[in-house]
Amino acid sequence: MSAVEPLGTCPPHNPLGHTVELGRDRPIRLDCGIEMAPVTVAYQTYGRLNADKTNAILLCHALTGDHYVADPHPITGKPGWWIDLVGPGKVFDTDRYFLICSNVLGGCMGTTGPRDINPATGKPWGQTFPVITIGDMVRVQARLVEYLGIDDLFCVIGGSMGGMQVLEWAASYPDKVFSAIPIATAARHSAQNIAFHEVGRQAIIADPDWMGGNYQEAGLRPHRGLAVARMAAHITYLSETALHRKFGRNLQDRDQVSYGFGADFQVESYLRHQGSTFVDRFDANSYLYITRAMDYFDLAAERDGVLANAFKGTRTRFCVVSFSSDWLFPTPESRAVVHALNAVAANVSFVEVQSDKGHDAFLLDEPEFHATLTGFLEGAAEHRGLRRKGNSQP
Amino acid sequence: MSAVEPLGTCPPHNPLGHTVELGRDRPIRLDCGIEMAPVTVAYQTYGRLNADKTNAILLCHALTGDHYVADPHPITGKPGWWIDLVGPGKVFDTDRYFLICSNVLGGCMGTTGPRDINPATGKPWGQTFPVITIGDMVRVQARLVEYLGIDDLFCVIGGSMGGMQVLEWAASYPDKVFSAIPIATAARHSAQNIAFHEVGRQAIIADPDWMGGNYQEAGLRPHRGLAVARMAAHITYLSETALHRKFGRNLQDRDQVSYGFGADFQVESYLRHQGSTFVDRFDANSYLYITRAMDYFDLAAERDGVLANAFKGTRTRFCVVSFSSDWLFPTPESRAVVHALNAVAANVSFVEVQSDKGHDAFLLDEPEFHATLTGFLEGAAEHRGLRRKGNSQP
Repeated sequence: MSAVEPLGTCPPHNPLGHTVELGRDRPIRLDCGIEMAPVTVAYQTYGRLNADKTNAILLCHALTGDHYVADPHPITGKPGWWIDLVGPGKVFDTDRYFLICSNVLGGCMGTTGPRDINPATGKPWGQTFPVITIGDMVRVQARLVEYLGIDDLFCVIGGSMGGMQVLEWAASYPDKVFSAIPIATAARHSAQNIAFHEVGRQAIIADPDWMGGNYQEAGLRPHRGLAVARMAAHITYLSETALHRKFGRNLQDRDQVSYGFGADFQVESYLRHQGSTFVDRFDANSYLYITRAMDYFDLAAERDGVLANAFKGTRTRFCVVSFSSDWLFPTPESRAVVHALNAVAANVSFVEVQSDKGHDAFLLDEPEFHATLTGFLEGAAEHRGLRRKGNSQP
Repeated sequence: MSAVEPLGTCPPHNPLGHTVELGRDRPIRLDCGIEMAPVTVAYQTYGRLNADKTNAILLCHALTGDHYVADPHPITGKPGWWIDLVGPGKVFDTDRYFLICSNVLGGCMGTTGPRDINPATGKPWGQTFPVITIGDMVRVQARLVEYLGIDDLFCVIGGSMGGMQVLEWAASYPDKVFSAIPIATAARHSAQNIAFHEVGRQAIIADPDWMGGNYQEAGLRPHRGLAVARMAAHITYLSETALHRKFGRNLQDRDQVSYGFGADFQVESYLRHQGSTFVDRFDANSYLYITRAMDYFDLAAERDGVLANAFKGTRTRFCVVSFSSDWLFPTPESRAVVHALNAVAANVSFVEVQSDKGHDAFLLDEPEFHATLTGFLEGAAEHRGLRRKGNSQP
């Protein structure tokens, strides 16, 4: 990681990212009531902040994502999760916009999380880390934006848990969000989604190497439980159609079944691979805390149960996006957000992208989706008075 | 269990069920090539076989079911899984039909399975038990039916894995099946379903108490892994709508979240309960073998990839039933069976029952479903020349 930057400066892109320590002077009050300080935030930037500071886009990552949006992942070496969307002339045109993405609170890629040392004890937080919320993640992001000297964001965008953060931003900091793009998300986690997360958590907790969350001190890692959790979750990220097209009942390496418990089917081999590679890059306790934050998310609940109350008086321009084959965050969840925004006469467009790729479509090559983003950002930029580089026309 | 009955007799109902040892004289050749003998079969009967032996219905149970169809489960004490359907005047009218249900090969409720002692070694089979198929399960059932002195069955019926057995019966023993009712099932296990099963298997295998399958000799049981497997599977048995209606985001015991990892949400508590009670009544190795059998099931594959080939020349009367909200065995899977039957001009009716209860609907109070069964059985009974008791009209 690069050195800590002085207050109010926006560091240029660095493939390794940046870190900053926040809250030492002013602790961050979490929803659970605990005040946390300091909080280290790992983040990444692309492009340049303009003189008016009006071109900043905050990208919010999903459950197991991080701030390596368009850089090789430092552990896996794989390309960033939105690499196809970031760059000159791309959806997030780095000649035009200044992009920020930070690893969420509770994460394991540099921002303070359960894997880090609790300064009060000198030991890893583990299960003594406070249970955090999407609101807490956004609170920390708001501090980062403030630290960077940016008053308000041109756009906040993200898919899945990133979309929850977008909605939270719009609800909690309406004056700091010019436009918002919540993608493949919901204003509250459904019973089925809580159930799938609970299976993952129980798989981790059932692993004896989890050791009540204190595996680090014992020099262990609950690899097996975390891999099972990932496998279960991964199924929910794909559509049945996508799984059928990719694998169907195709056999692995053989012409016929083995009459054994090896990975006879390609889909088994694929899932096992997903599980085993995940444990190399992710922390089990982080997985527990972040899934919990998603389960707790319910934007209406704290507002008399009326979702529209979350957006009363908003001047933010919204573009809500869902994918037709996403069964984890199905279109009706997005429609509920749109209805709430309509109820307060917000400026909102809604696109259900036709795709058979399931929830993960927001991370994949989906031209209609990318065209939607480009079009919406274009319109918002015009309203914001952002000009294209080398173009004197508004 | 009651004493072994002499060949060719149909024992009356006994709440504890019956057992019989089969294959000692004529081993049962399994799909993997192994010859198995003897095979103990635990089964249950309801009603009386008529003099013509034309009123026998074979009920095929699902993955974790057993032959206690309408009796209290000997371990849990819970009512049988189809108790509402079995009895005088009910869907399966015990005044009219003779019902048979046997625990499947590989099971853990009395029929030979991995928990039993391998006579060749004197030790529990464990992972040395041969990998079985739906075809093997049906082969053993056919031997039981033969042992009971029944030439052909008036009806074979079952849901989910039970439905796979029904299809296998119709394909492998067409002359022994007068009518067949495959419910909430498919002619081949889909990639998504294999994936969910693989998660469950990996959860079991990841449990150190599984001990490579030899947990019995060590006096252990992989409770934690099996509970996680059950939790993951259980989600797939319910529809999102059913989970939302039953639990939504309702909290357990409290007015607000705990900021901890206890079961804050009712749906978490429910799932944990499903997991923890399951391990009391089910064997982990049985779970591995039976899920594998379902994954291997592909009726078309062994018949040049053409499903219709499985039913060529069939004279069986079919009633195919699906449930509109079943996403584990969705209606298109049933429709594929119907199309194959139509292609060979079979006698087939097809009903998609409108229900929001998901896959488990076949085990629940669904009046339209029960009326469908009654109506179809009534028509088939008429064709079979079965008369109602105390009714001289055909």
